[in-house]
Amino acid sequence: MTAFTTTIQVRFGHVDPAGIAYFPRIFDYIHEVYEELWEHQVGVRYYKLLLEERIGFPLVHSEVDFRAPLKFGDRPEVAVTCTHLGRSSIELHYVFRLDGEVCVDARMTTVCTDLRAMKSLELPERFRARFEAIREAA
Amino acid sequence: MTAFTTTIQVRFGHVDPAGIAYFPRIFDYIHEVYEELWEHQVGVRYYKLLLEERIGFPLVHSEVDFRAPLKFGDRPEVAVTCTHLGRSSIELHYVFRLDGEVCVDARMTTVCTDLRAMKSLELPERFRARFEAIREAA
Amino acid sequence: MTAFTTTIQVRFGHVDPAGIAYFPRIFDYIHEVYEELWEHQVGVRYYKLLLEERIGFPLVHSEVDFRAPLKFGDRPEVAVTCTHLGRSSIELHYVFRLDGEVCVDARMTTVCTDLRAMKSLELPERFRARFEAIREAA
Amino acid sequence: MTAFTTTIQVRFGHVDPAGIAYFPRIFDYIHEVYEELWEHQVGVRYYKLLLEERIGFPLVHSEVDFRAPLKFGDRPEVAVTCTHLGRSSIELHYVFRLDGEVCVDARMTTVCTDLRAMKSLELPERFRARFEAIREAA
Repeated sequence: MTAFTTTIQVRFGHVDPAGIAYFPRIFDYIHEVYEELWEHQVGVRYYKLLLEERIGFPLVHSEVDFRAPLKFGDRPEVAVTCTHLGRSSIELHYVFRLDGEVCVDARMTTVCTDLRAMKSLELPERFRARFEAIREAA
Repeated sequence: MTAFTTTIQVRFGHVDPAGIAYFPRIFDYIHEVYEELWEHQVGVRYYKLLLEERIGFPLVHSEVDFRAPLKFGDRPEVAVTCTHLGRSSIELHYVFRLDGEVCVDARMTTVCTDLRAMKSLELPERFRARFEAIREAA
Repeated sequence: MTAFTTTIQVRFGHVDPAGIAYFPRIFDYIHEVYEELWEHQVGVRYYKLLLEERIGFPLVHSEVDFRAPLKFGDRPEVAVTCTHLGRSSIELHYVFRLDGEVCVDARMTTVCTDLRAMKSLELPERFRARFEAIREAA
Repeated sequence: MTAFTTTIQVRFGHVDPAGIAYFPRIFDYIHEVYEELWEHQVGVRYYKLLLEERIGFPLVHSEVDFRAPLKFGDRPEVAVTCTHLGRSSIELHYVFRLDGEVCVDARMTTVCTDLRAMKSLELPERFRARFEAIREAA
C-alpha cells in the first residue's frame, strides 16, 4: 500500500482573524485533494466523470480530528488512503502533516452515484483497482 | 426613485488576517444582495428564475471602488439602484454604507440570457418595470 | 430544554454543478449558525468575544451525517442543542431539517481558548448557563 | 517586458448550477495569482510580507471584463503585467486565456500600506524593480 500524496497551500483568503485556517476551508482542501486523487491516482479528471459519465460521489459521512492549526503560508502534505471499499461506498482517510506532525485527520465516506437516476451505483471495476492500490491494511 | 436596501453581515469566515473583509467575499455579498433584490424588489426567487424559467444574468463587467474596509462584525447597509437598462443588459449600482459612510461603490453589468440557447434575451416586461422603479436619475 | 433555532439559505454560489450544496459550504452554514447562537442565545456577539475578550473556540472534532441533499433555494431550519459541556470543551449538535426531514446531522466539539496564551480556558460561568439551557437530555 | 504567467484550475466547488465559475471565485483566482506573483516574480512569500514585515496591499479599485465563461475543469493561463506604478499604488493587469481566447480581463489597483500605522507607504525599491520588470508599455 502506497498512499496518494499531494501538497496544499494555506492562502491569505483561507485564514481567519485568529491567523489560522478557517475550518470550512479545510473541507475545501479535502475536495481539492480528492480531485487530484481522481486525476493522478485513478486516472480520470473528476469533471469528465461528472459531466461526461454522469457519475458522482456525494458525501454521506465525515469524521474529522483537528489536531493542530494550519497557519497562513503553511504547505501541509496530505496523504490519502482507502479504509473501506464497499459495493458502492468508499471511505477515504486524509492525513495532513506539517514537518511530520499530524494537523488534520479526516475520514470521508462517499457513495458512487448514477447522477441521471440519482441512485447508488456499483463502483466500476476500472476505478476499484485504483482505490485498492491505496488501501490501508486493517 | 427609491433604492432597494438590505443589510449584510461581515462574518468570521469572511475576514482575513488583517482583520478586514477579504475582497472576494465582497463580491459574494453583492450576489447575496442581488438574490434579495430579485426576491423582494422583482418578486421572483432567483433559483426559480434559473431552474424553472431557465433565465440567467451572467456578469459581463464590474467596476468597484473600495473606499473603506469592512471589519468583522460590521453590518453595512447596501442600497441598489439601476443605472442602465438596455434591451437585455442591466447595470446595477451597489453602495455599501456604515453609519452613512460609503465603504464600497460597485457597478455590475449583467446580460439577460436564455440559458437553454445560451443567447442574450430581451429583458421580459414584467421584470423591466421593477428595475425602472429603482432607476437612478441621470 | 429548548433548542436554539434559526434558518439558513442555500444561495446560488453555494451550489455545485450537480445542483446541490457543495459540502464545504455546509460547514460555512454551521459557523454562521454558531455566530447566531452566540448573539441570540448566549447574548454576546462573537466578534466582540474574539476581538475584545480574546476568547475563541477552535474546532477539535467534527462528525457529520449528510442524509439528504440541500438544493439551491432551500431554506432549512437548523436546531442546535448542547450534547456535552466539559470544563472547557463544548459539543454542539446541529440538525438541519427541510419540511421536518433531517438533511444534515452534525456534532462539533470546540474548546474554549485564551487567544493571548493560546491555552484552553475554563468556560466562563456567564456562558455556561446559556449552554445548559439548550442541553440535550442524555 | 515579460508578463508573469501561471495557471489556475476551475474546480468543482467553484462552479455554479449553470456550470460556469461563480464570479466571486474569479476574484479568489486573482488573489491566488497575486500570491504566486509575490513568491515567484517579486521573490517574497506574501505571508512573510504581511506577518513579518507588516506590509499589505489593500485593494482600492477593480475593473473587470468577463468575456467568456470559465467552465468546470478549465485550466486558464493567467498573464500579469503592471500598468501603473505610483509612489505607493500599483495597478496590475490580469488576462485569463483559454486556448488563446481572453476569458477575463481585470485591472486591480492596490496601495502599499504600513499595517501597523494603517497608512500608505512608499513602495520599497527592492519590490519596485520587480514590478518594473513586468511593466506593460504605454
